[in-house]
Amino acid sequence: MKQQIGVGMVGYAFMGRVHSQAWRSVGAFFDLPLSPSMAVLSGRSAGRTAEAAAQLGWAAVETDWKELVKRDDVQIVDICTPGDSHAEIAIAALEAGKHVICEKPLANTVAEAEAMAAAARAAAARGVRSMVAFNYRRVPAIALARQLVAEGRLGVIRHVRAQYLQDWIIDPEFPLVWRLQKDKAGSGALGDIGAHIVDTAQFILGDRLTGVSALTETFIKERPLADESAGLSAEGGVDRGQVTVDDAALFTGRFAGGAVASFEATRFATGRKNALRIEINGSLGSLSFDFEALNELWFHDHTLAAEEGGFRRVLVTEPGHPYAGAWWPPGHGLGYENTFTHEIKDFLEAIGGGFDPSPSFEDGLQVQRVLAAVEQSAADESRWTAI
Amino acid sequence: MKQQIGVGMVGYAFMGRVHSQAWRSVGAFFDLPLSPSMAVLSGRSAGRTAEAAAQLGWAAVETDWKELVKRDDVQIVDICTPGDSHAEIAIAALEAGKHVICEKPLANTVAEAEAMAAAARAAAARGVRSMVAFNYRRVPAIALARQLVAEGRLGVIRHVRAQYLQDWIIDPEFPLVWRLQKDKAGSGALGDIGAHIVDTAQFILGDRLTGVSALTETFIKERPLADESAGLSAEGGVDRGQVTVDDAALFTGRFAGGAVASFEATRFATGRKNALRIEINGSLGSLSFDFEALNELWFHDHTLAAEEGGFRRVLVTEPGHPYAGAWWPPGHGLGYENTFTHEIKDFLEAIGGGFDPSPSFEDGLQVQRVLAAVEQSAADESRWTAI
Amino acid sequence: MKQQIGVGMVGYAFMGRVHSQAWRSVGAFFDLPLSPSMAVLSGRSAGRTAEAAAQLGWAAVETDWKELVKRDDVQIVDICTPGDSHAEIAIAALEAGKHVICEKPLANTVAEAEAMAAAARAAAARGVRSMVAFNYRRVPAIALARQLVAEGRLGVIRHVRAQYLQDWIIDPEFPLVWRLQKDKAGSGALGDIGAHIVDTAQFILGDRLTGVSALTETFIKERPLADESAGLSAEGGVDRGQVTVDDAALFTGRFAGGAVASFEATRFATGRKNALRIEINGSLGSLSFDFEALNELWFHDHTLAAEEGGFRRVLVTEPGHPYAGAWWPPGHGLGYENTFTHEIKDFLEAIGGGFDPSPSFEDGLQVQRVLAAVEQSAADESRWTAI
Amino acid sequence: MKQQIGVGMVGYAFMGRVHSQAWRSVGAFFDLPLSPSMAVLSGRSAGRTAEAAAQLGWAAVETDWKELVKRDDVQIVDICTPGDSHAEIAIAALEAGKHVICEKPLANTVAEAEAMAAAARAAAARGVRSMVAFNYRRVPAIALARQLVAEGRLGVIRHVRAQYLQDWIIDPEFPLVWRLQKDKAGSGALGDIGAHIVDTAQFILGDRLTGVSALTETFIKERPLADESAGLSAEGGVDRGQVTVDDAALFTGRFAGGAVASFEATRFATGRKNALRIEINGSLGSLSFDFEALNELWFHDHTLAAEEGGFRRVLVTEPGHPYAGAWWPPGHGLGYENTFTHEIKDFLEAIGGGFDPSPSFEDGLQVQRVLAAVEQSAADESRWTAI
Repeated sequence: MKQQIGVGMVGYAFMGRVHSQAWRSVGAFFDLPLSPSMAVLSGRSAGRTAEAAAQLGWAAVETDWKELVKRDDVQIVDICTPGDSHAEIAIAALEAGKHVICEKPLANTVAEAEAMAAAARAAAARGVRSMVAFNYRRVPAIALARQLVAEGRLGVIRHVRAQYLQDWIIDPEFPLVWRLQKDKAGSGALGDIGAHIVDTAQFILGDRLTGVSALTETFIKERPLADESAGLSAEGGVDRGQVTVDDAALFTGRFAGGAVASFEATRFATGRKNALRIEINGSLGSLSFDFEALNELWFHDHTLAAEEGGFRRVLVTEPGHPYAGAWWPPGHGLGYENTFTHEIKDFLEAIGGGFDPSPSFEDGLQVQRVLAAVEQSAADESRWTAI
Repeated sequence: MKQQIGVGMVGYAFMGRVHSQAWRSVGAFFDLPLSPSMAVLSGRSAGRTAEAAAQLGWAAVETDWKELVKRDDVQIVDICTPGDSHAEIAIAALEAGKHVICEKPLANTVAEAEAMAAAARAAAARGVRSMVAFNYRRVPAIALARQLVAEGRLGVIRHVRAQYLQDWIIDPEFPLVWRLQKDKAGSGALGDIGAHIVDTAQFILGDRLTGVSALTETFIKERPLADESAGLSAEGGVDRGQVTVDDAALFTGRFAGGAVASFEATRFATGRKNALRIEINGSLGSLSFDFEALNELWFHDHTLAAEEGGFRRVLVTEPGHPYAGAWWPPGHGLGYENTFTHEIKDFLEAIGGGFDPSPSFEDGLQVQRVLAAVEQSAADESRWTAI
Repeated sequence: MKQQIGVGMVGYAFMGRVHSQAWRSVGAFFDLPLSPSMAVLSGRSAGRTAEAAAQLGWAAVETDWKELVKRDDVQIVDICTPGDSHAEIAIAALEAGKHVICEKPLANTVAEAEAMAAAARAAAARGVRSMVAFNYRRVPAIALARQLVAEGRLGVIRHVRAQYLQDWIIDPEFPLVWRLQKDKAGSGALGDIGAHIVDTAQFILGDRLTGVSALTETFIKERPLADESAGLSAEGGVDRGQVTVDDAALFTGRFAGGAVASFEATRFATGRKNALRIEINGSLGSLSFDFEALNELWFHDHTLAAEEGGFRRVLVTEPGHPYAGAWWPPGHGLGYENTFTHEIKDFLEAIGGGFDPSPSFEDGLQVQRVLAAVEQSAADESRWTAI
Repeated sequence: MKQQIGVGMVGYAFMGRVHSQAWRSVGAFFDLPLSPSMAVLSGRSAGRTAEAAAQLGWAAVETDWKELVKRDDVQIVDICTPGDSHAEIAIAALEAGKHVICEKPLANTVAEAEAMAAAARAAAARGVRSMVAFNYRRVPAIALARQLVAEGRLGVIRHVRAQYLQDWIIDPEFPLVWRLQKDKAGSGALGDIGAHIVDTAQFILGDRLTGVSALTETFIKERPLADESAGLSAEGGVDRGQVTVDDAALFTGRFAGGAVASFEATRFATGRKNALRIEINGSLGSLSFDFEALNELWFHDHTLAAEEGGFRRVLVTEPGHPYAGAWWPPGHGLGYENTFTHEIKDFLEAIGGGFDPSPSFEDGLQVQRVLAAVEQSAADESRWTAI
């Protein structure tokens, strides 16, 4: 029998639901060093947390995450809350000797992220592991992209063009949810989805951005207050509040290795639902990916004869592909949730194997620094800003 | 607390693994009338079955399915074995008052399928439910296709072209596994994947095939014997056996409503991994689908002005799409496994709601009749064969 | 200065317009042995023919093709009329010692086609050349497909699936034009577009169909009479006439080399405009093409590692691709008309070089035999019919 | 009989060849007010110019463009030379009362472009017309895009993302041709292909860029000298020269109407041959285009129900589409060359109709100003630069 390891999760909204599915499923598909048990779920409302725990399969409930962190049946803390609470929870958990997996962006500010990275370093010295949950690294197609670049199949990288396009707030009557408030979310499209393309690009290249030039835009400046805070205004209309984050962020950048890059994160790309796209051009080949077709990686091998060259659609479902062999026969297609299963699997292997998982809090901090540089450049006439 | 309902599953290979994932997950995403408990797994080898049960999450083990069928903690029997055992298990389970969900094709012969359908009818009269597991009906895109046709959005259907293309046996050294043996599998590509496109086409149209003209082919007539039976031949070479099923089946057909159709099922479509494709043309519009891009349905609405017409890629991940709302935000993509979760959900709703689920054993029998007509036509110079 | 060669064209409708563009342009892009001069255009109406000649660039006009055939300034006769007149014109022209290029299908009946092929053989013995205008062989992507198959890159061919899908007559009020009348057109979708996919498939494979099983359908049995013959009926309604050709033809077939094939030609594929599609699967690779994206050939090379395999989109615009080098830089895209320019170029090279061009009248006859077998099988319960 | 109008063309390389095909063909497809006659071709080498004239169909030859401009049989001057000669030729031609069509970019500097625009204004007052040859406006799909935006079908435009991707100089041994020399070409990818996406974006939006932030890069700093100037170096190696233009230019921008935009022009996008791509997102819909599939425009109509929304592939070959009705039946596909035929047609209609064609030299000047702002921003730490 495998050794069990208890998990406590904080937060049970969108991210909590998908993390739960990963904790629930991972053992059936991967041969793990440790068997996770879904021990405790914490949330502020006792009733709603209990309901979520029952539905999602958590054995116990806490209404205060500080209690969860103390529990003996919890060895892993999984943080699925908005960004403003990450630092406090993660640092407390690490100090309590719990392994931590934390949703991205690592924090809302560079200062918080620095404190978290410091705590992670200290914890690592005691064998306590931490990981930031950039799940898209675990899309098999993206992992394969990293592999091809690492093997030199693309040669010298010249270009990166990365976009993360959504459209869920194009209606001006969409309410002012927490993701549109700077104090809760840190930033808008930039931190929520821009963080993903920064991490994905740096991951695939195995390289770091050294500077950026940016512009940001908030197309809809005011929105109806969301449920919890809404009310009729004195004039009988809908109360509106200020949108304090960006709707869209566009930036160019340069990588240490010489590649030039363009990035765009927006929630106003009408008709694009979750189009995390990246295209990379190197001296020997190119890659192209779009999460809306997540099982496909497009690869152009420029070393073939020109007459038979072209982007080929690699269906990343072969046994030899990253993660894919654990699932179904070729062509049977994975979905969004499986990327979290892969993430949890890698995290458990690191804990069980006694090594630091990747991406680390340090990696999360570095992404945070890129985001901060983007905001600074956007505030300073798009001037080039070093990272 | 919801009432629990015990499940016993027979078989734990490919189908057993994906059914297990569905039983494990369905309650976390859908509000069900009954809460399934994964009670018993049965398989012939005690050791391997126990190992599978531990990995897949089944509470107990039986080495004889007959014992499983008798157990009090089993109210549902889930049949995931090869086709030659379906009839015996299903009929026994139904007679024992267990609800039955049975993998497709329903049986290896029309006679067996008829016996099963008769048993299902008798059981239904006693409130015992049965369902044949044509999971592709539960791909959201295919369910949406059915919806659009049922609403009349395609008008009078003129054409169906359906293909199920795989390539996993193109290597002549691929061994003679049970799926290549007529006594175990009933037929080859025809029953394994051809059955799916027959069911899918009939489901989307809400119509039945009335006749077919067919040809079948076995490209590789002999193959190395598979593990269990292999050995060195007297001459020191690899022992080979006869392939007794089709590698490919092509047929044309006519639907009762006047549509003409072409079907092709093959395991020799090099480079196609799991391309269940269907295109439907009607007087008012068309639909196109390929499982290799399972989250997309392509819809051409011919009532729009010609200047703006064209096939549009509907990403079937909107809250209003069949099944999709239970999962993630738009664009986040489902995978193969989710189609089974949907199937189990619909089955549990039928049991809980006291109505017969669909597709019924009767539907499975009708598909079997189509397959039999295909084989008969292929054996008789492709002559038109009524169903 | 190059030697001039005079061309006389019979017919100036759709085919006449595109042939004219090819005659007009070919010399500017290809280094030809002979320089074509657009000498004479013939059509029945003096006025309309003169108008067409002025617009399309023909120097003189005849209202009787027999006069055109006699003229000294005509060494090539280009036949762009409906199929019922091909045999008479072609045979007369060949007997008069004129080289002949004739639109497809070669004729409306096998008997006519046989007479034409005999005339072509006799003429060839005297150095007079003839060619049937299957222009799609000259799509660079299709020529490249042929090349890849001929080089063995696909290995043993297992599957062909070919479709030619259009939708221009789905409206039941579309009139009864000559293409819907058997006496003028020979057959419907079968001869008009089915002939193209039969020729294309045989060309790419370098192989011949040995038998077929078919069904045909006429969805709309009666249509309004077209302009020339229309009138008010006694009841004041629109006069309607019988549609005497197929709207759609579906057939399966076998090639001499062992491949099995499915074919479908239809004018009722709503939303498909000119989708000549062919997919070919061999033991070493596959090809896929759709004329609606005519500059692309999709090639799967199965000899690559499975992890990087997949259909690649070869943009067939490289200097080394068939015909492409004569035009623009890579990626700049050719159109429908260029396929005719290529055809004329090949025809002129054959005349100048003293060899027989391809496809020959014999090839056209063989396609006619396939079409006849399709019609015979469709009339005989889809029974297998040898060619 | 239509009135003839004589054309004199300067330059006969790539652009000269495609312009010739347009002059040769336009009258056969469009009902023009004036019938162009291909009167004179000018080039520096008498022999090569005579050869080109014979092949391309020009009646006479001049070795000095100044002579061409003076000729009585020339009423239109078509400038197909590198950018450094545009201003001198165009101004001389306009002053001589000749209508002028000039290849893009209009000039190599803003000063030259201003002089040209002034000359064009003066000429227009005398009924002499001028046009800059941004041929991509005449791709039917791009003309349709403009139409949809102008009709308000996209609502308020939020985003533009435009790329022009090629890969023809990724080999470091590709020689230092004139397009890589600043004195001849003005700039590199920026002026050659970046100019096209700036014009295309502004054309479709009917709006102007107000500012940009840019970076440019030259990946390969030295290249072998091209034929005319090459020689062995003292050391016996290949002589190399400095690349004085950009290999790639990336910039963000803002439109007067509020849209934010990203642009990228590069000759280092390995595997992309002529990918002029543009995607536009508005409050009511989106458009997407890629010249590598030039007959397709992708349109998302956000006013449809979310459940049936999605990008649809409009095949821009319907009779009602811009320019398309003059050619072939739906689905038969145009190529690169046809865009020039459309351009010539519009130019002749403007001359015949007595109005100014579009895009004007003023439009060309404005694009030049955008390019200048891009270079200025790139030289100044990407700082925002107003236009």
